[in-house]
Amino acid sequence: MKVVRLGVIGLGNMGKGHLNYIAKGEVKGVEVTAVSDSVPDRLQWAKELLGGQVGVFEDPRQMMDSGLVDAVLIATPHYSHPELAIACFERGLHVLCEKPAGVYTKQVREMNEAGGKANVKFSMMYNQRTNPLYVKLKELIDAGELGEVRRTNWIITSWYRSQSYYDSGTWRATWAGEGGGVLLNQDPHQLDLWQWTISMMPKRVRAFCYFGKHRDIEVEDDVTAFVEYENGATGVFVTTTGEAPGTNRLEISGDRGKIVIENNTLTFWRLRVSEREFNKQFKGGFGEPECWKCEIPVKGSYPDHKGITQNFVNAILHDEPLIAPGEEGIKGLMLSNAMLLSTWTDNWVDLPIDEELFYEYLQERIESSVYNKEAQTK
Amino acid sequence: MKVVRLGVIGLGNMGKGHLNYIAKGEVKGVEVTAVSDSVPDRLQWAKELLGGQVGVFEDPRQMMDSGLVDAVLIATPHYSHPELAIACFERGLHVLCEKPAGVYTKQVREMNEAGGKANVKFSMMYNQRTNPLYVKLKELIDAGELGEVRRTNWIITSWYRSQSYYDSGTWRATWAGEGGGVLLNQDPHQLDLWQWTISMMPKRVRAFCYFGKHRDIEVEDDVTAFVEYENGATGVFVTTTGEAPGTNRLEISGDRGKIVIENNTLTFWRLRVSEREFNKQFKGGFGEPECWKCEIPVKGSYPDHKGITQNFVNAILHDEPLIAPGEEGIKGLMLSNAMLLSTWTDNWVDLPIDEELFYEYLQERIESSVYNKEAQTK
Repeated sequence: MKVVRLGVIGLGNMGKGHLNYIAKGEVKGVEVTAVSDSVPDRLQWAKELLGGQVGVFEDPRQMMDSGLVDAVLIATPHYSHPELAIACFERGLHVLCEKPAGVYTKQVREMNEAGGKANVKFSMMYNQRTNPLYVKLKELIDAGELGEVRRTNWIITSWYRSQSYYDSGTWRATWAGEGGGVLLNQDPHQLDLWQWTISMMPKRVRAFCYFGKHRDIEVEDDVTAFVEYENGATGVFVTTTGEAPGTNRLEISGDRGKIVIENNTLTFWRLRVSEREFNKQFKGGFGEPECWKCEIPVKGSYPDHKGITQNFVNAILHDEPLIAPGEEGIKGLMLSNAMLLSTWTDNWVDLPIDEELFYEYLQERIESSVYNKEAQTK
Repeated sequence: MKVVRLGVIGLGNMGKGHLNYIAKGEVKGVEVTAVSDSVPDRLQWAKELLGGQVGVFEDPRQMMDSGLVDAVLIATPHYSHPELAIACFERGLHVLCEKPAGVYTKQVREMNEAGGKANVKFSMMYNQRTNPLYVKLKELIDAGELGEVRRTNWIITSWYRSQSYYDSGTWRATWAGEGGGVLLNQDPHQLDLWQWTISMMPKRVRAFCYFGKHRDIEVEDDVTAFVEYENGATGVFVTTTGEAPGTNRLEISGDRGKIVIENNTLTFWRLRVSEREFNKQFKGGFGEPECWKCEIPVKGSYPDHKGITQNFVNAILHDEPLIAPGEEGIKGLMLSNAMLLSTWTDNWVDLPIDEELFYEYLQERIESSVYNKEAQTK
């Protein structure tokens, strides 16, 4: 294969964005050969952008069966990601899936199992994994510069959404239409980076979600979560769409100091000797380890969505390792599901979560949702 | 009365500090006329500092009964604060009490009741209430500049203590000797300022305390607490003595923006119109209120301990309003007790807390404490 023939399912905001940069030739080794959407106007738009030779399909499965595509980019509403990915896997098609991986982990685990059996590439659109700030953070932690992680703290409240935003689509912020709120729509990248950069998932979660607190919506728009990790570290995650101006500040403490990412800057307060070593040797009562404030250079471009798409294409053509393997999409979703479940049960939730229990709670909410789920997931 | 005759009980680090600045004449209208401590060397030290005419007493009640003092500064170990204050109230003596007010609210409530009946001045040594940063914060919030408070977040982990510190006294960090850890010893000021600056106490608390996590001690050295306020606001408080370098960052979000105090600077991100107003009027989908980053001048000196002592003296002599009325000491202690109780019961704790239940849990810990409580509280 010299050029990957890509089909795109879903031509909403995200799908159109991907089509635009690919049409401009900004990703090497790929061509969009087919698109699928249930809205005829969108298909017409794609024909005008890509030329008359592009295959257009109202039914995504017809596109998959058309022989026109080797790989599929899924940019549909959240609920449909797993079922469409599984349909691709069954046909031996490579998959690049928009975030989140799905709405509930039960569904995503089935997707991962199907992906594992298919001999294809499977990637998640975790474009923030190409953000040099977080790449650098992960590199520093992987290299042991911070020592063992002791505490994480992410305040990510820079997601202001007005009622006007929520009113722009009847499916928005409903259990049936979207399946979640700020955790599922705004935070998937942060929930992924939170565990990806430190290479640790929490072992249990105690969270406090508020539903329709700031806006007239069904889903969560305000969350504080506390987590414990296996090594004894703890963490806090605070998020909302209701505050202005928001904060985006990630602090990670370790045995060798502290890293803070804020205002697009990474600062490392580095201890000259590790805290553990200092504590063992120091005999002076009051006193603490010598600390250097280090401004860490964060170099390199931020290829963003294009970077992930290019990596996916390169994986197919040249077996390049994936930056965001599709199977890892379940991790961030597990965190968001755990936070909701902890709130619903008003209790701790151990990870991995009880998928069936989460699914039951979610179904109850879907059943009483103002939005008709059928319209959205067909 | 032209000059307040002050007796000081407890000549440890804090008591000596107070004596030193008063002896230098740095507080107007007060003279130390007597001191009390069970250690003869300390009494000798005080005689040398203040001159032979100063009354010295091994028994604080003898000092109270000596007729030498109008007011008493209590700087003894935590457990004894309430009983000594009550003894002063019974004798009509004014009281300035070191923080914390006590170890458990049951005891402190009795102190407050006795204080309320006595016709004397009663102040807590909340010297941070004279810190211009927090004075300014309170002034801005009281004036409505921030609008209704929506979220508070204090990361106060700049309390590094090595094992060597804890090993410097057998009573340190034991349930019987001190009655608490980082919440009781390091955080009383922050717990007070947290509620004082916003004029709101939480209505319930869910906290996660860890005992002897970083050091070989009995008490809590690592805490994360989540709180809910009556108006729907939420808050997070993170503290530990085990990290280096620590963080001291207070963020408060309101309807009119956000204030952050960090690195001795107060920054106010001020919304041009309130968030609520913007949300009501905005119809554009994506978009958020115009925000100005304002560097707020923080002027005035930081009189610290001297400021509180001077205010206490002025209250006695000139009826000046107290900066830190003694009765308010129970608020910060209530928060710290609630955090421990929430951890011990692994559940929510409503405020005001169940004082008897807390007392029972504490007694269990005192009974199994390695330190003999009797030695410390007599």
